[in-house]
Amino acid sequence: MAEETLTKDSILDAAESVLRKFGLAKTNMSDIGRALGVSHAALYRHFDGKAALRKAVVERWLLGSLAPLEASVREEDAPERRLYRWLQTLRAFKRERARKDPELFAMYAALVAETEGALEEHLQHLMLQLTSIIESGMAVGAFACEDAGQSAMAILMATTRFHHAAHAAEWELPDSDARFEAIWKLVLNGLASRT
Amino acid sequence: MAEETLTKDSILDAAESVLRKFGLAKTNMSDIGRALGVSHAALYRHFDGKAALRKAVVERWLLGSLAPLEASVREEDAPERRLYRWLQTLRAFKRERARKDPELFAMYAALVAETEGALEEHLQHLMLQLTSIIESGMAVGAFACEDAGQSAMAILMATTRFHHAAHAAEWELPDSDARFEAIWKLVLNGLASRT
Repeated sequence: MAEETLTKDSILDAAESVLRKFGLAKTNMSDIGRALGVSHAALYRHFDGKAALRKAVVERWLLGSLAPLEASVREEDAPERRLYRWLQTLRAFKRERARKDPELFAMYAALVAETEGALEEHLQHLMLQLTSIIESGMAVGAFACEDAGQSAMAILMATTRFHHAAHAAEWELPDSDARFEAIWKLVLNGLASRT
Repeated sequence: MAEETLTKDSILDAAESVLRKFGLAKTNMSDIGRALGVSHAALYRHFDGKAALRKAVVERWLLGSLAPLEASVREEDAPERRLYRWLQTLRAFKRERARKDPELFAMYAALVAETEGALEEHLQHLMLQLTSIIESGMAVGAFACEDAGQSAMAILMATTRFHHAAHAAEWELPDSDARFEAIWKLVLNGLASRT
């Protein structure tokens, strides 16, 4: 690749392949430069070293789930239905990723776990979307919670089993749907207005 | 150890030490017999092979959490408080184990994950206790849920972050308490009678 056409995204693609092949411990910037056919220095113009590059790889992976969720945030519908759809979209997105390429999914799960702050930052992004749905439910009197942000955190934590990679092995089990629905019922009831 | 004084528990103790030292793949019945100074045949009088022994080791570890929980099931108090105490006891028990001997905790976490059905069986035990608390709350009109067993499952799933070993790294974080309380609030509200 010519160094002047090198983009962040092409570097991240190459880093993903190299990481997949060699693992985090054995991958260095030279391997990624070699895979792209560019110099060490060209890489450093985009990323300030292995730690920065790795963080960017992880972020791009995690951000991938936000776009499909964004639709549920924007749509016009009853807040309960938007909330349900948002949670199901998150769940389906993760499950589909794990199903499509289990090896890549496992690599990223390990990479995320090893990258300090990555998962917390991702939770913050998810929280923002969720908070916005809950706020609109509060505005129309559908949800009676006091603090939309706190409720968003509680809902994210309560649905851990369906979006945290540590539980991917359960996602294809026959009772996964029933378990999700049981939590959903509890959550919805917990949010509901008492009037 | 004299073969006639060999007990299931002494074998499980020895198996734990050997597993800890060598890991699951490299441990066999002979290693455990050697650690106890007894014959292969003596071990087989108690356990029908490595798989059975390993299952028993895992079960003993998981059952350890049930005894302290049993107290919250039996106590006389408002169902909301018993439920809260049960969840906090489970959480504290797991956290204390992880804190006291992180290496042993990690070994068991891996062992549990690799032992088919072990975690599901453990969930069933927990569910029974939880269901009994919820039923007594339904009986006095404190909880309005329709199906105690389904609510018990939902609550166990919703509190995954605080008792599943995959999340042990978060248990000492400063906001762990706040997150737990946020879920508790949602759960309690979700169960509460609307009258």
